[in-house]
Amino acid sequence: MKHLIDFTAEQLASFEADAQKKYDEFVSKGITLNMARGKPAPEQLDLSDKLFSLTADDTGFIASDGSDCRNYGLLYGIPECRKLFGEILGVDPKNIIACGSSSLNLMFDYIAQCCYSGVSGCEPWIYNKNKKFIAIVPGYDRHFAIAEYFGLQMINVPMVAEGPDMDMIEELIKDPDVKGMFCVPKYSNPDGITYSDETVRRLAKMKPAAKDFRVIWDAAYIVHDLYEEGDELLNIFDEACKYGNEDNFVAFTSTSKITFAGAGVSAIAVSDRNFEEISRRLTLQIISYDKINQLKHSFIYKTLDDVKAQMKKHAEIMRPKFMTVLSVLNEELGELGIAKWNEPKGGYFISLDVETGSAKYVGELCKNAGLTLTGVGATYPYGIDPEDKNIRLAPSCPSVEELKAASEIICLAVKLAACKAIRESK
Amino acid sequence: MKHLIDFTAEQLASFEADAQKKYDEFVSKGITLNMARGKPAPEQLDLSDKLFSLTADDTGFIASDGSDCRNYGLLYGIPECRKLFGEILGVDPKNIIACGSSSLNLMFDYIAQCCYSGVSGCEPWIYNKNKKFIAIVPGYDRHFAIAEYFGLQMINVPMVAEGPDMDMIEELIKDPDVKGMFCVPKYSNPDGITYSDETVRRLAKMKPAAKDFRVIWDAAYIVHDLYEEGDELLNIFDEACKYGNEDNFVAFTSTSKITFAGAGVSAIAVSDRNFEEISRRLTLQIISYDKINQLKHSFIYKTLDDVKAQMKKHAEIMRPKFMTVLSVLNEELGELGIAKWNEPKGGYFISLDVETGSAKYVGELCKNAGLTLTGVGATYPYGIDPEDKNIRLAPSCPSVEELKAASEIICLAVKLAACKAIRESK
Repeated sequence: MKHLIDFTAEQLASFEADAQKKYDEFVSKGITLNMARGKPAPEQLDLSDKLFSLTADDTGFIASDGSDCRNYGLLYGIPECRKLFGEILGVDPKNIIACGSSSLNLMFDYIAQCCYSGVSGCEPWIYNKNKKFIAIVPGYDRHFAIAEYFGLQMINVPMVAEGPDMDMIEELIKDPDVKGMFCVPKYSNPDGITYSDETVRRLAKMKPAAKDFRVIWDAAYIVHDLYEEGDELLNIFDEACKYGNEDNFVAFTSTSKITFAGAGVSAIAVSDRNFEEISRRLTLQIISYDKINQLKHSFIYKTLDDVKAQMKKHAEIMRPKFMTVLSVLNEELGELGIAKWNEPKGGYFISLDVETGSAKYVGELCKNAGLTLTGVGATYPYGIDPEDKNIRLAPSCPSVEELKAASEIICLAVKLAACKAIRESK
Repeated sequence: MKHLIDFTAEQLASFEADAQKKYDEFVSKGITLNMARGKPAPEQLDLSDKLFSLTADDTGFIASDGSDCRNYGLLYGIPECRKLFGEILGVDPKNIIACGSSSLNLMFDYIAQCCYSGVSGCEPWIYNKNKKFIAIVPGYDRHFAIAEYFGLQMINVPMVAEGPDMDMIEELIKDPDVKGMFCVPKYSNPDGITYSDETVRRLAKMKPAAKDFRVIWDAAYIVHDLYEEGDELLNIFDEACKYGNEDNFVAFTSTSKITFAGAGVSAIAVSDRNFEEISRRLTLQIISYDKINQLKHSFIYKTLDDVKAQMKKHAEIMRPKFMTVLSVLNEELGELGIAKWNEPKGGYFISLDVETGSAKYVGELCKNAGLTLTGVGATYPYGIDPEDKNIRLAPSCPSVEELKAASEIICLAVKLAACKAIRESK
């Protein structure tokens, strides 16, 4: 099959009419589908029903160090929970703080601390009118929203197959006003790309002009493989330590997509110096996090292997969903040359690039057919995709049946938008 | 019995020798007691064992609005939990945000927002080098620590029998650099004083020069009565609304001392305008709080009456402890004129005022006899009690037996310190 751009006018007209007819059929059905957010499906949540219903007969009340989890104490979390996150993130438990239910909250609070209090003995960021942040694009809208809220001017750096464009980053960090970056190094949101060893090493080696440069290492999908063979991510702290750069990295994760979304346990992994700095704030911010939830999680997940076993069950639910979307995309758009996408081996998203200038229109067409996608533009800072081409697909929550319909709608919308673009460009 | 100050030299020497002998006996026993923090006792935590062990068979997973509590969503909390806190705090549920496990965290975050982002359209506090906060003394060390962390210069305002000295506050708020105050309006920490109607009304009427003046209304002990007949606190929002001043107040509470300390549910109560302002931050800070814990709490505590029934059980455990301490204080120090204390009808503390310049020495004597008290000075900003006279006693955690010994040690320490002071002043 030839690319759509090479179709004759008649072929294009016939192709468009066919797509329009099928699209109209979907519209007339009046369906409602949602692929907007990376929410776990109910059957994924069912995997943790045991956690919901653990009783004192199962867990007791007492943490491994003898602390009563029902009372105040242990600001840094119970030892068994710190150990578990240590295994997940590949760091010593002493460098882990096991916290509450939200890692986003931890990232927000850390950026806030950088802004109002300063880190590494540097001036609080808030006093710097030119403070900037590297925004890897496409990326996670909530990361960008935090940077925007704190007045960090974002500089777009594109993702390539290996991770962010490191040549650009190495240039940008020569500016002392460039204070850091968010990243999702494994199964990136939305591309599903895992940073290559070379990328991790180049990040680890960085000597930014800003002494208070911080990489927010959002390990949201660190154990979230879809297949038996998952991507491998180098351990950032091991690499950074080789160059004395471990303070540049602050890692975050949570069990939101292991157990319950928004009701799991989160954690920070940091260098000794950063631990001390965060600790000075935490001591004032909270007496202790919810240790009961930590205890219940640690009861079920004693080791990384226990977590991996759980992730296999998630993968069994998620994999057919990803495969459904990918197979429709391949079948419908595979050889038309009007769209590109990754086939991620994990994470929660498929990133779809359509013709430049078409993404918003595709989003509208989907919406009119009853399918809600992540707001087009949301994968870029300030909600502005300069090329208007990226669409994030979140296949986790709908059923396979729904995803089939949703993917067909997306493909029809992409086709219609492409036909319109080609017509208009001629 | 006459006051110690009126003792003859011989009487004093004999009194001191007797106290010293008894004190030395305690020292020789090598006991270890702790009355430092307002931690619930294990038997209080046992009162919530049912909460710990609720299963899905009890609660289901679904909130009253149909939301799955295991998934993301409902940033402001589940409706039944907002309703419960609405009843506890006396406000419409629409003005409640039900949050995570820590109200201290909520207060810290709110002050942080005032500092880096500003409220009521005013300049962020961080840019104001002269920003000040009213510190009601004696008060809660964690409040003072937050103010200190954010660089708010604290101005001491003494507590009187009716609450804080309102004449002073009404003067201080004429300064636009005075940005607010923390307070514990019911069963204050440490005095156990509940603000009189007149005090609440004067607070409600305040028209501070700073448009972004905020009273952090820490309703930590709002339902924490010790006796059948508890103190009554006027509803601050009802009063403030009469003068259009509802934005001046941001109220916080939690179930930390109703269910589990550090593993309960917390809440914010605010005006519509403040709700919107906090909401702009929260939307970026977190996707949603732990709704499973909210669901479990709301299952057991459906109404304020359910909470009150639980608080009666707490009171049955706490009351004998307070009475033990108070009876030893009365018996040993009642007529010597060397110490004063309140007899609170609720809360977690007894505030003991000893001879000016003696509190640190009393603390040392207690420590040497194996009794840890709240750090002397901690009830004042920067840890400095200008008169060195206040000591906070926290009777909740030790047993009645232990409290009897602890109180005797305290009384002996107070006597010895007073004797020393009298000897040295003569």
